[in-house]
Formats: sequence, structure tokens, C-alpha cells
Amino acid sequence: MELHILDHRLRVTSITKSGLAHFTHPLIKLIFLRHRTRCKFFSMTETPENYTVVLDEEGFKELEASSQLQAEGSVWLPLNVLSDANASLGSQAVGVTKIAESVIAPLARQHVSVFMVSTYQTDFILVREKDLPVVVGTLEEFNIFREVGGESLLVRGHDIANGLHNNGKEAVPATLHPVLIPHNRFCVMSLDPDTLPSIATTLIDVLFYSGSPKQDEATSPSTDLDQIKFFSFSLIDGYVSLVMDTDAQRRFPADLLFTSSSGELWRMVRIGGQPLGFDECGIVAQISQPLADCDISAYYISTFSFDHALVPEEDIARVSDMLHKQRTDPTTG
Amino acid sequence: MELHILDHRLRVTSITKSGLAHFTHPLIKLIFLRHRTRCKFFSMTETPENYTVVLDEEGFKELEASSQLQAEGSVWLPLNVLSDANASLGSQAVGVTKIAESVIAPLARQHVSVFMVSTYQTDFILVREKDLPVVVGTLEEFNIFREVGGESLLVRGHDIANGLHNNGKEAVPATLHPVLIPHNRFCVMSLDPDTLPSIATTLIDVLFYSGSPKQDEATSPSTDLDQIKFFSFSLIDGYVSLVMDTDAQRRFPADLLFTSSSGELWRMVRIGGQPLGFDECGIVAQISQPLADCDISAYYISTFSFDHALVPEEDIARVSDMLHKQRTDPTTG
Repeated sequence: MELHILDHRLRVTSITKSGLAHFTHPLIKLIFLRHRTRCKFFSMTETPENYTVVLDEEGFKELEASSQLQAEGSVWLPLNVLSDANASLGSQAVGVTKIAESVIAPLARQHVSVFMVSTYQTDFILVREKDLPVVVGTLEEFNIFREVGGESLLVRGHDIANGLHNNGKEAVPATLHPVLIPHNRFCVMSLDPDTLPSIATTLIDVLFYSGSPKQDEATSPSTDLDQIKFFSFSLIDGYVSLVMDTDAQRRFPADLLFTSSSGELWRMVRIGGQPLGFDECGIVAQISQPLADCDISAYYISTFSFDHALVPEEDIARVSDMLHKQRTDPTTG
Repeated sequence: MELHILDHRLRVTSITKSGLAHFTHPLIKLIFLRHRTRCKFFSMTETPENYTVVLDEEGFKELEASSQLQAEGSVWLPLNVLSDANASLGSQAVGVTKIAESVIAPLARQHVSVFMVSTYQTDFILVREKDLPVVVGTLEEFNIFREVGGESLLVRGHDIANGLHNNGKEAVPATLHPVLIPHNRFCVMSLDPDTLPSIATTLIDVLFYSGSPKQDEATSPSTDLDQIKFFSFSLIDGYVSLVMDTDAQRRFPADLLFTSSSGELWRMVRIGGQPLGFDECGIVAQISQPLADCDISAYYISTFSFDHALVPEEDIARVSDMLHKQRTDPTTG
């Protein structure tokens, strides 16, 4: 398998709910007016807490400093695993599950914090730039390439692994964070980037105005805490990915957005009772490892405050049981 | 002929060029998300000086107070002349020319300031609410209706004109303002409001980002002062009108925007060397009267700083001569 260190230097930021209006101008430029920006990696996720915006340094320059904008201090680099088409992985699972044992677990053991951005197309594992030597030393089963200016340079073939792994540190038992399983059902979708203009007004409405009531509907904000507000849009290297619940999906034209042929719906597990911060390691491993054990697919989207795993609707009962057992009897986790 | 006092209470505002980014959120809502606002009258015009935004009080509420936003203090009411289909006007001219003698000149004589908003569909004559009694008393040849909640109420039939006209005030000779005739050619267009989403990204780009250079073109801002930056969008009672030069027009899909069957192009006369303010009367009359004498059609768009008349391309030489004569020998004006 190949691990690619992509040619994006990323910042992880958060915009407050009330501050969004002041960032509408740069955000719309980053989403819809690609000819006006050099930004190549942009992801924006609304959660009940805030908007998490992950973007490269070119994009970050567009965001004016403001008390409404919080930026994590580090530069993050996205890693991407390319499966070997010839290798039988012995698993049909997709998403973070597929890389749980090869990437997530080893990095957790080496105390490397990761920030996950799953999309329709692939899963990006963001690591801090300063952790890159440890990352390269740890992921021994990969040929590792660094992408620079459109070229892939071999950093290390797996035959010359330098043995940094298992460097003597003991894995610290991770805190088991509370989880929340909201009732909405999600889909993970994409669309031809050339048709993005066709959904512009709907997407703008959902992303920037969903907080304000419509004039033509009774103003009865949902007080049902079982429904989480979660909407994610990303435009990365020209590929569009959208994660939304079925309510939001109905607002988009059905003929433009597409999802995997199985048309699966996904349920969410939100991880964290208090905002998780960026320094704790092993949070993703904590959930991806048991999912891998059960061969359950999962998307995983980290945000500024919490982490979010999406698992197939039909597996949510099993996942819920598993998480419950993990929290009541940690030896099974 | 009928004069209708429309059921909109308008504010005339100006947003600075550098302040536009901070108003993008409410402006995009007013332009594209009609279901989220009660605003029914919205017009936005970019000029080299600033953005003039004319909108009703519902729309005005969306604009947060800011040092970048200037609002003229009055409430303005839009008047609209409905031509009697049976009356032969003896003129093929359209726009402000058609109402020069019946509306513009009498109001100027009564020292009523007007603010003009010509659109593809019609010409709105905005007058201050406090001037309404004088307006009604002055426009003696009209049946005057006030629209209230969808109904047209007769205010005064022309047979009971109350003689307020010719009230003894002498017409003050108006200042003759310098004029500028830029070289761009303009078109006045419309589109089906249901297709507005199809041009959303282009319209957003033109309205909100035209000040910043594109990444994919050499950054050589035009230094040709003969080309004026002027773009006007209005959404009034569900009707869309666009005024743009032929450079901007080429950026829109040709199949969605339509113009009059003659496909006429228009040249601009900008009136004013210094910002005109809102209190001087007779500025519109000064140009519409000679245009009416020559039977030359004209659109007329007032903005926060200057006034702008659009005349048919083939008439610009005549108009230019006429304006020049007016300025060198005022007795011919």
C-alpha cells in the first residue's frame, strides 16, 4: 500500500455561529469562485457548536483576523492511503475502518494526534507538520510518497523502515469519551464540480442561512435534541463532497447529487462530552479499532469541538452495543 | 394616464467599496433567498464611487449599522406611470423621456427632489414621503392611485385637481452639472426570476468580487478612464432587471438573459462633477426635457453620488451636442 503526504499545508479553524455573516464573502469565494483563489483544499462543516473550516494557507489568507475566528496554531498535512488494487484486504469495509490497523492504531501508539476528514472520495488523515518524522518512522508497512508540485517523491520504501515504531513509549490508556447517537440519517454525496453553480443558491441557503427562520414557515425551531445539525461541504483538489442528513438532501435537486450505488444511509456517533481539543491521541483509534474488528465501514469527520463517525444505518445497533460495552467494561474495548 | 403610488417605503443607502464584504451576507439573502425575507423592492448599483442600495424598510432591517453604510435620512415612495393603452402619445420614445413633461418637469418646478430607478420593466420615480401632498397636488393630468395591501385606492381623479400647481414659486434656474460620457456600451436586460439561481455564481462574482483580480488573468486593472464601472441589479415585486456593459454581458449565458427585441445598446451620460446630494431639484428635468424635445428614449438611474442617463447608441452624438450647447449657451437648454 502507498501512503501519500499531500502537497497542502492546512489550517484548522472555527468560526462562531454569530460570526458566520462576516465571513460569508471569503467563504463564498472559496466555495464557488475557484478562478479567484489559489485555495485547493477547503472543507466546511456546520455542527451545533460552530463552523469548522479546514483549508490550506492560500485559503486561510482570505479569512480576516477576528474574535469570531479561532485557528488551531499548527500547520497540518493531509495523508492519504492508496489501496493496492491487487492486494486482497480481506475486508469490504470502507472509510476509516480500512485504515484503522495500518494507520490509525500505530499513530495513536506513537502519541500522534490526528484530525480526520472523510469525504465521498477518500479519507484524509491530517497530522501536524512537526509530527511528520514520527509519522514516517511509524507507518512501516507503507511505501511513503511526498507530493511536491504535482510529483510524487518516494520518502521511504517499506523495506527500509527505520524502526522508530515501538519506540519504547507505552500506550497510555485513552479516556473513553461519552458518545451521542442522534436520530438523523445521513448521506455522503458528490457532484460534478461543473454543476456546482446549479446548486449554488440551495447550498448557500443551507450553509449560510439555515440558522435564520424562513418567512414562509412557522417559526418553530426544533427542540428535538435527538436531531443534530450537521452539514459538511468540501472542495478538495477539484472534488466535491457533501455530508448531509436526509432533511437537507430533500432540498437539493435529486438529479445532480450522487451517492454510492448502494445508496446507503448512515447514522452518526458523536464522540466527546466536552470539546476534545487537538492534543489528545487515540480518539479515532478508540472507535475505529472495534469497527475494524467487526468489519463495519465508517466515515470519520473531526471538527473543532467534537469527532463524528458515520456508520451504516443497519449496523448502528451493533455499534451502539459495542460502544456501551466499551464504556461499562473497558477490557472489551 | 394613471399615476400609482406604490406600496413600498424605501430607503436610499450607500455601501463603501471596502465595506461590501461585510454586507455580502444580507445582500445575497435579499437577492437570491426570497423565501427568507419580506423585502419586495431591492436595487443595487455599483459605480466607481460605491454601491447604491435602494430597498424597502423590510430589506433595510437586514443591513446592520456600520460606518461603511450611509443611509439618506428620508423614506422615499416610488411612483409609477401607467400609460393609457388607448392614448396616442405621439412618441415612440420610452423610459424617462416619456414622463419628462408630465411628471419630471412639473415636480422640478415645485421643487420636489426625485430619485430615479429605471428598470427593464418600468421607471420608478422616487419622491420623499413628506413631499407626497405636493406631488399629488402637482401632477394634475393623472388619475392618482395609492396602492395599499394589493388594492389601488383612488387618491385624486384629474378632474378634481386642486390647483396646487403653479403655486407662485418661481422655478429656480438649475445648476448645469458637468457630464461625462464613458465609452462602454450598455444593455438593459431581464430574466425569468425562476432562472435566477442559474446565474447565481456569475451574478455573485460580478456584484461582489469584481473588485479583486482573478488568479488566472494578468493583473492589469484597466486604467482607461473612458470605461466606467457600472452594474445594476434590481428585484422589484418579483421582476428582475439588469443593466450592464457588454463586457459584463459576455460573462452571462446568452440564453437566459433577454433584452428588448431590437437588442439595442445604450450609451451613458453621467451627470455631476461633485456628488449631487439629494436636495437639488431639476437635475433629471435638465436632461429629460431636451431628450423629450428630440424624442430620444432614455433610462435614468440615480445613485448615491451621481445620476446616470442611458440613451440609444445611435443618438449619443446628438445628445452629446445638445448637452454641449446647453452648457455653452444656456438659453438653448
